[in-house]
Amino acid sequence: MRDHASAADVQHVVDLLTEAGAEAHLSRGEVKTIIGVIGDREVIYSLEFEGLPGVEQVVRVLKPFKLVSRDFQPEDTVVRARGTAIGGGAFAVVAGPCSIESEEQMFSTARAAADAGANMLRGGAFKPRSSPYAFQGMGVEGLKLLRAAGDEVGLPVVTEVLDVRDAEVVAEYADVMQVGARNMQNFMMLDELGTMAKPVLLKRGLSATIEELLSAAEYILKGGNRDVILCERGIRTFETYTRNTLDLSAVAALKSLTHLPVMVDPSHATGRRDLIGPMCKAGIAAGADGLMIEVHPDPEHARCDGPQSLTPADFAALMSDLGPRIALEEKTMGAAS
Amino acid sequence: MRDHASAADVQHVVDLLTEAGAEAHLSRGEVKTIIGVIGDREVIYSLEFEGLPGVEQVVRVLKPFKLVSRDFQPEDTVVRARGTAIGGGAFAVVAGPCSIESEEQMFSTARAAADAGANMLRGGAFKPRSSPYAFQGMGVEGLKLLRAAGDEVGLPVVTEVLDVRDAEVVAEYADVMQVGARNMQNFMMLDELGTMAKPVLLKRGLSATIEELLSAAEYILKGGNRDVILCERGIRTFETYTRNTLDLSAVAALKSLTHLPVMVDPSHATGRRDLIGPMCKAGIAAGADGLMIEVHPDPEHARCDGPQSLTPADFAALMSDLGPRIALEEKTMGAAS
Amino acid sequence: MRDHASAADVQHVVDLLTEAGAEAHLSRGEVKTIIGVIGDREVIYSLEFEGLPGVEQVVRVLKPFKLVSRDFQPEDTVVRARGTAIGGGAFAVVAGPCSIESEEQMFSTARAAADAGANMLRGGAFKPRSSPYAFQGMGVEGLKLLRAAGDEVGLPVVTEVLDVRDAEVVAEYADVMQVGARNMQNFMMLDELGTMAKPVLLKRGLSATIEELLSAAEYILKGGNRDVILCERGIRTFETYTRNTLDLSAVAALKSLTHLPVMVDPSHATGRRDLIGPMCKAGIAAGADGLMIEVHPDPEHARCDGPQSLTPADFAALMSDLGPRIALEEKTMGAAS
Amino acid sequence: MRDHASAADVQHVVDLLTEAGAEAHLSRGEVKTIIGVIGDREVIYSLEFEGLPGVEQVVRVLKPFKLVSRDFQPEDTVVRARGTAIGGGAFAVVAGPCSIESEEQMFSTARAAADAGANMLRGGAFKPRSSPYAFQGMGVEGLKLLRAAGDEVGLPVVTEVLDVRDAEVVAEYADVMQVGARNMQNFMMLDELGTMAKPVLLKRGLSATIEELLSAAEYILKGGNRDVILCERGIRTFETYTRNTLDLSAVAALKSLTHLPVMVDPSHATGRRDLIGPMCKAGIAAGADGLMIEVHPDPEHARCDGPQSLTPADFAALMSDLGPRIALEEKTMGAAS
Repeated sequence: MRDHASAADVQHVVDLLTEAGAEAHLSRGEVKTIIGVIGDREVIYSLEFEGLPGVEQVVRVLKPFKLVSRDFQPEDTVVRARGTAIGGGAFAVVAGPCSIESEEQMFSTARAAADAGANMLRGGAFKPRSSPYAFQGMGVEGLKLLRAAGDEVGLPVVTEVLDVRDAEVVAEYADVMQVGARNMQNFMMLDELGTMAKPVLLKRGLSATIEELLSAAEYILKGGNRDVILCERGIRTFETYTRNTLDLSAVAALKSLTHLPVMVDPSHATGRRDLIGPMCKAGIAAGADGLMIEVHPDPEHARCDGPQSLTPADFAALMSDLGPRIALEEKTMGAAS
Repeated sequence: MRDHASAADVQHVVDLLTEAGAEAHLSRGEVKTIIGVIGDREVIYSLEFEGLPGVEQVVRVLKPFKLVSRDFQPEDTVVRARGTAIGGGAFAVVAGPCSIESEEQMFSTARAAADAGANMLRGGAFKPRSSPYAFQGMGVEGLKLLRAAGDEVGLPVVTEVLDVRDAEVVAEYADVMQVGARNMQNFMMLDELGTMAKPVLLKRGLSATIEELLSAAEYILKGGNRDVILCERGIRTFETYTRNTLDLSAVAALKSLTHLPVMVDPSHATGRRDLIGPMCKAGIAAGADGLMIEVHPDPEHARCDGPQSLTPADFAALMSDLGPRIALEEKTMGAAS
Repeated sequence: MRDHASAADVQHVVDLLTEAGAEAHLSRGEVKTIIGVIGDREVIYSLEFEGLPGVEQVVRVLKPFKLVSRDFQPEDTVVRARGTAIGGGAFAVVAGPCSIESEEQMFSTARAAADAGANMLRGGAFKPRSSPYAFQGMGVEGLKLLRAAGDEVGLPVVTEVLDVRDAEVVAEYADVMQVGARNMQNFMMLDELGTMAKPVLLKRGLSATIEELLSAAEYILKGGNRDVILCERGIRTFETYTRNTLDLSAVAALKSLTHLPVMVDPSHATGRRDLIGPMCKAGIAAGADGLMIEVHPDPEHARCDGPQSLTPADFAALMSDLGPRIALEEKTMGAAS
Repeated sequence: MRDHASAADVQHVVDLLTEAGAEAHLSRGEVKTIIGVIGDREVIYSLEFEGLPGVEQVVRVLKPFKLVSRDFQPEDTVVRARGTAIGGGAFAVVAGPCSIESEEQMFSTARAAADAGANMLRGGAFKPRSSPYAFQGMGVEGLKLLRAAGDEVGLPVVTEVLDVRDAEVVAEYADVMQVGARNMQNFMMLDELGTMAKPVLLKRGLSATIEELLSAAEYILKGGNRDVILCERGIRTFETYTRNTLDLSAVAALKSLTHLPVMVDPSHATGRRDLIGPMCKAGIAAGADGLMIEVHPDPEHARCDGPQSLTPADFAALMSDLGPRIALEEKTMGAAS
């Protein structure tokens, strides 16, 4: 309550709490009165007391999520997609182009990714682009190429669902359904994916808090789908040297708050090829369970995100560099058992 | 280019530009070489030269939008919804509850809004909520109540499309389709709304730049729908006293960059009842064409956003206060001619 | 406390609180335990319980400031500098160049400012510049020119103290001592100014919260100097179209939290000449007690901040435009009574 | 220039450029004209063309710094303080309490730090505190304790200069002078330290860009002092779970932009004891040359930053964990040669 809030204002809040079925405990000081509230999650989140007479600040100490928390499930969730596992000590590297552009590009990237040791393949068929004048992706044709390329090299494939109406068709071809940063709070899509039997890779929104990311995951788990991988991909700050600011403390924080596996995408976070290597290493050291790296056979002619794509040769060199670091964290490239 | 970039690196960039059909102009200094590039918007936005050898920085001077810009259309767009106009000197006040909760709540709010002089009615039927444990809205039942209430008091109604699959049904009941902040970059929804013959109220994303907001509007105009209203509703910053930071310089900037009408939503931006009045006044003074204000007959028992809702009496008082300020900006509450 | 925190962890916190002289009140739920704490401000701010076993979150409800708050002093503080007052209904417009460059520039600006109705004169003698290669100001020579120009036109003068070692010499020439955004948390300087008998104009830091600004002001008041003017000058966000983001909701919030007068500086906030007019109007409407506007006789040749400086003609036009708006807020250009 | 800028506007800019001694190169397209500018750093940074008629955007491609850049000096700078080196493969760990509180506390921490393998000792004698009601440090008495403790365990000591007037006395006792985040743009202090013969540890401001940090360092080098260590300590973002957001991509970026050694301070960045270990590891992997870690013999009773301080036992365990990681980056704990 505000300093010197009146007894009537305090009583009014207590009455509203009681009416809603919650329990109120008062701490009265000379200047301040604090009201501690105990009640069900649903009740607590239906109460909005900011702005009531005499109320200064409302702090919700009960988290808006439950199923995703480590308090609820202490042991790590392991997500499996065909032959690959992630979480609980299993480490995954997802590699591939930002957007699928042609059969040759997709297959050559797939071979390069597999040869270098990646255990998951990515490629965008539907591309979210800020400008309507930029390339928007190949659509279903792209999905087919991705599937075929994954099958040839024996890797599970992950691709983004951009439109909830495409969820069915994407599920037909993909092993992991990606929710992009711009859709992290597309709650209808989260609800839809919660009812499907496919793992979901959920990217953090550009200005989403850790708590909002976990609440978004909670939507999916609440629907029954427990196979969710979280992905830190940079947040929006005032810094302009990097495209976004990769928040690696969020990775460490998530590992302690939730049992879900956590990935890092340094390609989108930095937007700069020369920073990807250091950020992969730092992500592993911060406790990540996986990495997502853009690889393109000819970055200079890529139709999307060329500046942050590695060549197959660069990717192979990076992978050998990462091996000992993954081992140092007592994780292993994850073949699903 | 980087300091002392080699002649070969410079030539390589020039070659790639020429190959893509753009024109390159060199400015060479002792330390720096700058390459000016001229070409079509589509070409410019397909080029991604960040990360090439010797390249230090890429600055796009051609904007990623065209149809929305004042350079393209100097005169103000006037958007009309039933009896109400906004833009080109016509001012609109949209009032109503955050979420539609019951027939009584919706009708009493509608009457209060109309009596106080609002010329548009709002109400949420589908609610985007960070937590799956919060109230999610009444759905189609809510749409019907909103329509009926609007009809009774003779005001056009605006409501949010949360899911692209609901666009049809929302269009059946609403006069203006709102795209919420979390969907500002839901490009599939923007595409869909671009083909419809209903005005769109497009809210700025929580961390969207002015340029991204205009690019999102460009999606809709590119589809053929020219009736777009932009809405500033606060951006996410480090400040925690207010829920978001209302960016009124964006309003003034938008008025100079685009011909589309611009609204301000101080309720969501501040999240605090006591700041709504001052921010309404400041928004008008900054050049806004309209305001969006949450009104609820009983804010203390509202199921959503109670702390930032005005009572009917507060709203009526505020409206009388705003009258002379709207007049001072040479705008009039907008009856469509 | 964390979910299901042990009785021992709770007791440990209670013991530490008691030991420190504070009072603890428990609210126990099935999942959560909340500990309400009551005690002296000094005690509360010496306790740091984040990170103790079982502790999830620490929320300080007692503010870190007291003398500046409206709870402590409900009536407005009026700050007086020679003939000019600000606060309590008195409105001040401070005009002048970013940096003092020459006698002619300073005197012609002073005359233009006074003629147009400004009631305070500004000019920078010591300039904080991000790059050591930019112009750093004329120093004491500049102070003398500012004083002489102010005397000629009969206006009090305000100028920045960049270095605490210059406080004495600046006080010799200035009527109001400005603390720049970069020095808002230069606590040694705040302490020094707290012991002087000169009004202080304290600018908000680029990433300072409202609470931090008030705490910085508290340093000055605690030293005995009660004449502090706060100034909102834009905060740093991800938006790059404007130099900073002018936070006008902070102005309204400050007016309710503190009795000190609040100014707005749209020149530094936006960095764009065309946005200054709208932001002056919006600042007045948001409740500001004054404005700070950069005026230069020849902005194209200004040695600092030319792009955001108004010409004398533009400034005069703006001032006539602002008159009715100041009156509408029931404020008057402040001659000190 | 703006779309379709007039020939006169273009010519006006070219004239101003020529008059200032710079060279202008035009690239003209159907819609856009771009003016490339070549000239001296001092000239370029004295030009401010934003806001001129027809000017849309001004991009400075010549950096505001020179001496700190790798283009200027490709080989790593190695900073030496008594027996310890940092940079060029030498790794440093600075440990100690946030604030010096007593002889016993300082000496026991010093012994614990040295025993665990730290090669530099820290301790705050002058504390910058947001609230005037918080503990402000022991002052010169603290400096003496720090010096004595460092001498006993044979480690160089680093401490913050909070006030430029204290630079002399701090230099008397300290081996490395720390500039805190709030003083990063206290240019008078940077100038002062530039003339002294003591290494400087320069912390990044809470909302300072990478470029601003480098420009601040340039002030010191320009004065003649080449021994500067940069320190990333978290930036201010919307995320509230951690105190600040540790920006490790800035570390990798700085290593490529400058020859100066770069440190990471995870204690201040995260404000949470449990995140310090992961962020130390991630910092090393990102390319840092050193770490700064808060250690306190009794964190629960620390007068400052207890929640983020490690106990001596935790610190010793962490140090053994970090050893192999430092080795993996081909760095060695830096004894000065």
